[in-house]
Amino acid sequence: MNYKNKFPIFSNIENHYLDTAATSQKPKVVLDKIREYYEKYNGNPGRGSHKLSVEAQSLLSNARECVRKFINAKRAEEVIFTKNTTESINLVAYTYGMNFISENDEIILGISNHHANIVPWQFVAKQKKAKLKYIYLTENGQFDLEDLKSKISDRTKIVAISAVVNVTGVIQPIKEIIEIAHSKNALVLVDAAQSMLHFKHDVQELDADFLVFSGHKIFAPMGIGVMYGKKEILDKMPPFLYGGDMIEFVTEQESTFAQLPNKFEGGTQNVEGAVTLEEAIKFICEIGYEKIEKIEENLANKALEELNKLDFVETYFTKDVERTGVIAFNVIGVHSHDVAFILDSFDVAVRSGHHCAQPLMKYIGVASCCRASFSIYNDESDIQKLIEGLLKVKEVFKL
Amino acid sequence: MNYKNKFPIFSNIENHYLDTAATSQKPKVVLDKIREYYEKYNGNPGRGSHKLSVEAQSLLSNARECVRKFINAKRAEEVIFTKNTTESINLVAYTYGMNFISENDEIILGISNHHANIVPWQFVAKQKKAKLKYIYLTENGQFDLEDLKSKISDRTKIVAISAVVNVTGVIQPIKEIIEIAHSKNALVLVDAAQSMLHFKHDVQELDADFLVFSGHKIFAPMGIGVMYGKKEILDKMPPFLYGGDMIEFVTEQESTFAQLPNKFEGGTQNVEGAVTLEEAIKFICEIGYEKIEKIEENLANKALEELNKLDFVETYFTKDVERTGVIAFNVIGVHSHDVAFILDSFDVAVRSGHHCAQPLMKYIGVASCCRASFSIYNDESDIQKLIEGLLKVKEVFKL
Repeated sequence: MNYKNKFPIFSNIENHYLDTAATSQKPKVVLDKIREYYEKYNGNPGRGSHKLSVEAQSLLSNARECVRKFINAKRAEEVIFTKNTTESINLVAYTYGMNFISENDEIILGISNHHANIVPWQFVAKQKKAKLKYIYLTENGQFDLEDLKSKISDRTKIVAISAVVNVTGVIQPIKEIIEIAHSKNALVLVDAAQSMLHFKHDVQELDADFLVFSGHKIFAPMGIGVMYGKKEILDKMPPFLYGGDMIEFVTEQESTFAQLPNKFEGGTQNVEGAVTLEEAIKFICEIGYEKIEKIEENLANKALEELNKLDFVETYFTKDVERTGVIAFNVIGVHSHDVAFILDSFDVAVRSGHHCAQPLMKYIGVASCCRASFSIYNDESDIQKLIEGLLKVKEVFKL
Repeated sequence: MNYKNKFPIFSNIENHYLDTAATSQKPKVVLDKIREYYEKYNGNPGRGSHKLSVEAQSLLSNARECVRKFINAKRAEEVIFTKNTTESINLVAYTYGMNFISENDEIILGISNHHANIVPWQFVAKQKKAKLKYIYLTENGQFDLEDLKSKISDRTKIVAISAVVNVTGVIQPIKEIIEIAHSKNALVLVDAAQSMLHFKHDVQELDADFLVFSGHKIFAPMGIGVMYGKKEILDKMPPFLYGGDMIEFVTEQESTFAQLPNKFEGGTQNVEGAVTLEEAIKFICEIGYEKIEKIEENLANKALEELNKLDFVETYFTKDVERTGVIAFNVIGVHSHDVAFILDSFDVAVRSGHHCAQPLMKYIGVASCCRASFSIYNDESDIQKLIEGLLKVKEVFKL
């Protein structure tokens, strides 16, 4: 069984959507929630005494509490709403990075990080004359813990990593990384953009200092993201976006700032985003991660089995490693964009290119690749079409 | 005639919504567009070769072109999508401000600016040891051009002002301010958050250097905003949010950045926000600013006439000055929150408090006030209820 019928787009268009890792499709309950919010409750939260404003504020608080429970944060005010993972990471870079990282301090990144978890740190390193160090991968595509142990030092201020590699779906040993980092008093930022849809994250059990993710990759609309941080760290950080609602008092020359979470939420908050993120989280929890993982795993295994039969296709990091339902592959000798283009003519949507992970691509010596990512709305017909399309690629390019 | 029946919320709840200046309600066409986007087109733009990704990219480009035409920018790439006005102003502060403003340079602000157009500049001034100067108001609540002329100098780098004062609805002489600023080679940032719904903005005719606004105040959903800037200025500015899609090449230690507009649009863009902003703009243009202004003016004049009959009510800056459909008022001797609370029991939604404009409130010597703002979905019944509610306030407080 799968959940295709819960997602209206698949009744409207013919698409074998294997690009959930880029952005997920939206279930009907989430789309209904958007409408319900604007048709019954819409107001600007926290700025008024009338019921629409008060209700919007209370919806925002409920959504915050829902996210808190979802990631098991200790306190609701540790959950900060942003527009997406990119803003979340930039928030940490501009505030923690620019204020607590100094000359000759070190920032450690995974070579398989998404650009969003590399480029903000290059900015901080350049501004503060700090050093960027990279942790490379073991043979099976995982973050090499020995490499981390050999590179981390007392000057390491932060380790910023992805919980799942966006190109390959390889799951990283986050808990071990955090333990090693903490043994040197370095903080850890976990980019959970690619993992949040696939397994449970418990920030207290992980002891993560920061954890960030986007709504649009977990069945919620675009325009909403989360930055989780431990209260004692967030309390020390200055604000990021300055504006309404994040202040306490403003005089001509100076301002004092609000407590968490408002301190980091300047400007009108995206209540639509927050209430629909809550709805998406409820949808995920109702199905349960166990079932989600099982569906994805079955589909990815089946697809891999079929891909392995094609001698003109190679896959990357698909052996002997824990993975989500993602397969990185190439048709040997054909550019990934050409492959994706032909697959598209079979209504199969796979991502192609460098996947915002140029350092990883360079490291593994592959200029670009295709990526098929599976979710709960996929089924075997999607795999069948993928294989049909690849046979067409073989035919067109006379392989 | 008014447009109440185009806005579904008013068929679902009983509300005399006089708080459009905080956030607007959404017309059915915009809500339908959200659904249509997610049910037919949803994909991550600019990152793939498959049709849903290509379509999302083309929807984003169409929306950008629509905004370009709306504000008459010369080039589409001068239109940068953000999450709201606050992010737009922070973008300019963090990039232009932090890189082109130096010790002893001056930043000139209007005393009637919203906090979002004050606090980011306090941050820049503090970091760069620059000076903040304020321009005060004439007797009728307008920006005092003589005060500007006396304070502006060769050290003034930027003048940041609101086109309409959010508390009072007073329209500021933007064109004259820009002329004066340009005579000293200072740039001008126009905060159009409060004006965009009420009259046409032509950035070329105004010769504005930056102009910013939010979608949610002009009938579009929350989570989308615009930062317009002249290409030659934007080209010189470094990026703000670092991440995917805003880069050209990323190596371990360094990155090069994409051209406009991508340079300022790191991370997955809010395509829902962009396409629905386009829909909201089309909705506004179909009605036409002339009609919108007329409706708002009629309602505000009528309301003012009724308010003036109540000797226990005072209004602010409502005489001899060009205004949008906004009235700031107080019941003499009663806190604005208490007034708003009682009005709410009549289903009348007015804003109360300091309206994110503490420096203005201090300047005019009023701790807080109520604000009624009128839009195309209001009618005389809303005014009637407002007056009924105020008579109740009089009764409750035995005035």
